[in-house]
Amino acid sequence: MEYINGGVCAAKGFRAAGIYAGVKEGGDPSKKDLALILSDAECTAAAMYTTNRVKAAPIYVTMAHLEDECAWGVIANSGNANACAPNSHENAELMCEAAAKATGRSARDFVVCSTGVIGPELNVQAIVDAAPALSEALRADAEGSTAAAEAIMTTDTVKKEVAVQVELGGKVVTLGGIAKGSGMIHPNMGTMLCFLTSDCAISPDMLSAVLHEVVPRTFNRVTVDGDTSTNDTCAILCNGLAGNPLIEWKDSSYAAFKAALTQVLTHLSRAMAADGEGASRLITCTVHGSRSEEAAERLSKAIVASSLVKAAMFGADANWGRVLCAMGYSKAPFRPEHVDIKFASVAGELPVCEKGAQIPFDEDKAKEILSQNEVIIDVNVNEGDNYATCWGCDLTYDYVKINGDYRT
Amino acid sequence: MEYINGGVCAAKGFRAAGIYAGVKEGGDPSKKDLALILSDAECTAAAMYTTNRVKAAPIYVTMAHLEDECAWGVIANSGNANACAPNSHENAELMCEAAAKATGRSARDFVVCSTGVIGPELNVQAIVDAAPALSEALRADAEGSTAAAEAIMTTDTVKKEVAVQVELGGKVVTLGGIAKGSGMIHPNMGTMLCFLTSDCAISPDMLSAVLHEVVPRTFNRVTVDGDTSTNDTCAILCNGLAGNPLIEWKDSSYAAFKAALTQVLTHLSRAMAADGEGASRLITCTVHGSRSEEAAERLSKAIVASSLVKAAMFGADANWGRVLCAMGYSKAPFRPEHVDIKFASVAGELPVCEKGAQIPFDEDKAKEILSQNEVIIDVNVNEGDNYATCWGCDLTYDYVKINGDYRT
Repeated sequence: MEYINGGVCAAKGFRAAGIYAGVKEGGDPSKKDLALILSDAECTAAAMYTTNRVKAAPIYVTMAHLEDECAWGVIANSGNANACAPNSHENAELMCEAAAKATGRSARDFVVCSTGVIGPELNVQAIVDAAPALSEALRADAEGSTAAAEAIMTTDTVKKEVAVQVELGGKVVTLGGIAKGSGMIHPNMGTMLCFLTSDCAISPDMLSAVLHEVVPRTFNRVTVDGDTSTNDTCAILCNGLAGNPLIEWKDSSYAAFKAALTQVLTHLSRAMAADGEGASRLITCTVHGSRSEEAAERLSKAIVASSLVKAAMFGADANWGRVLCAMGYSKAPFRPEHVDIKFASVAGELPVCEKGAQIPFDEDKAKEILSQNEVIIDVNVNEGDNYATCWGCDLTYDYVKINGDYRT
Repeated sequence: MEYINGGVCAAKGFRAAGIYAGVKEGGDPSKKDLALILSDAECTAAAMYTTNRVKAAPIYVTMAHLEDECAWGVIANSGNANACAPNSHENAELMCEAAAKATGRSARDFVVCSTGVIGPELNVQAIVDAAPALSEALRADAEGSTAAAEAIMTTDTVKKEVAVQVELGGKVVTLGGIAKGSGMIHPNMGTMLCFLTSDCAISPDMLSAVLHEVVPRTFNRVTVDGDTSTNDTCAILCNGLAGNPLIEWKDSSYAAFKAALTQVLTHLSRAMAADGEGASRLITCTVHGSRSEEAAERLSKAIVASSLVKAAMFGADANWGRVLCAMGYSKAPFRPEHVDIKFASVAGELPVCEKGAQIPFDEDKAKEILSQNEVIIDVNVNEGDNYATCWGCDLTYDYVKINGDYRT
């Protein structure tokens, strides 16, 4: 398996575009806010959505459009979440109709997503007016993907794109994706927008199955702030143009495609955590030696979600007691007196706690290790063979700044 | 029922003291770090502890000492949590022995608590050395209570003391308390240290019952940062010197004592939330119109615990969408399309959402309302008659600053 360029345009038969439509009043014309992804052939499609009881209208519209497990494209805007807003359902449908009209397809062929502030009515006229230019701007190369990736960004500081290739049944299959993250990010599906495209030939059942196997171990293990958004959507479109034998069973090709999807979503998960709102460093926490993967995941999530651990990481402070404290309230089974904790990074590795109690360590070395861009919290509960890794980021002044006045 | 001065010394037969013992290496001699509360008569005692699986040694020692439901006093230190630390159990026992020796009682007569950093070994010798002076400093007046309240503070910026009087069976009964809060505060018992004293005559069963009835509706409804500490303890000592008829049943005297306890713990809960680490304002969130009190509590807790809501409150930003979003992931039942949301404070009241959607409102008025020291988030889910109130605080630069480098 290897990484290649091109994001959502890497797979055969996909084009993408991103332009400025003026979704947000007084928006910055240099910030694209409308994205389109279109396939040259009909796609098998699957999606996963936020578990939040309050779901934005585009989610319900997308659910309806994917009832037939088919799609041709995605239309998405930033600048407004179209959630809990007047005429939200109608406006989500109008977005799909605008995309359909501009591309010669039907409204039901589209996945639709919105991201931005909750509450205000969506300026759908700006989107309708921009749709023809958006369709004109479609490109099959890396620039198309990048434009779409930029158009869905909100408080993200870097675009998130990735693509990989694998060989399935003698054919090269490509899988690529773009995503946006930043705030309102917490394990429990979606936790962001992510659009994936592939030229793989795969049945609707197998596509849905593989998405539901991989998302819980990737996106659902990212936390930025514990707030699960109203709009989270992860959608995958596969047009079959790679010409591989159709994946209909959980065979070796399924396993290879699953590995590719895992690699793509792990990459995007790490990118989302590293670019969490205000983040200055990525925190990777692995809990191993657990009796079950579920327990390991729960412990690891509690650690990366703890405000006190996150603040300590911001300060490069080896306050491991907060790690053990977070494990304690996670409700997962473990014995505190068996726990070993290490901090690690490119600057080295440092055990700080053995059998649940502090061991002497060099504070200067700890500071050096914890000052790197990626910090690893490595916990062994010494009770079994299962493990899980979750990703998060530190809690910084900038998180408070960004969210203290997001609407204005 | 009326508020009076005196805190834990308000009730008959209680003395208290707080002095500097030098628990923390390089500590500030002007910051008291060792507290003692002592009754002139044997007390019926009850306590509630953190639900964290990782419990500090003093909690296990206190549990053992309260097996007989009797106590004479409390010894507590700040500057070190005596949790996950070498010799923690032995050191907690040594603290009780030191208190016993200095006061002529037995070690098992004492509740013991510690608060501070997790991990390092407790400097118990400093406490043993200071115990005689601590006992010498015991006073039966308000100054004694204040000294004890100051000695248990960590990052608290104000001491927390309160006392009330009620008449039970023709006798005046007094109930007072001191508490510390600030960080690692989250609903689920304790969430802090709180010591309560009363001259009420009450049976051990009734004392335990009333504590378990009131704490879930007061302290367990406070959140500062979602981190449930390893050391939380709420202990109550009643020496019976008021001479009221012994409370042995859930009669009208029980109800009156429960009302007094509710008033005292509500006062301390609000004080803890308002003085949350880095907080610039108290957030009081009431969810009413709910099908059950449990659902209302869960919704209200999710709102005051949301990092995004807390950051918006810091910025005095009327971002009500985050309130609805937090409700959505709380896992409590409600219909988003029935929800009304108002913001209120001494500056007025402002509806911002009706039936789950935004209504027009004056942004300047919203800013004025949200800029006050106490802000009320008032939510009506319009489905029933139950309600619950939770307390929290905003998320500020100072929270990040305080916790970025707490140990040093």
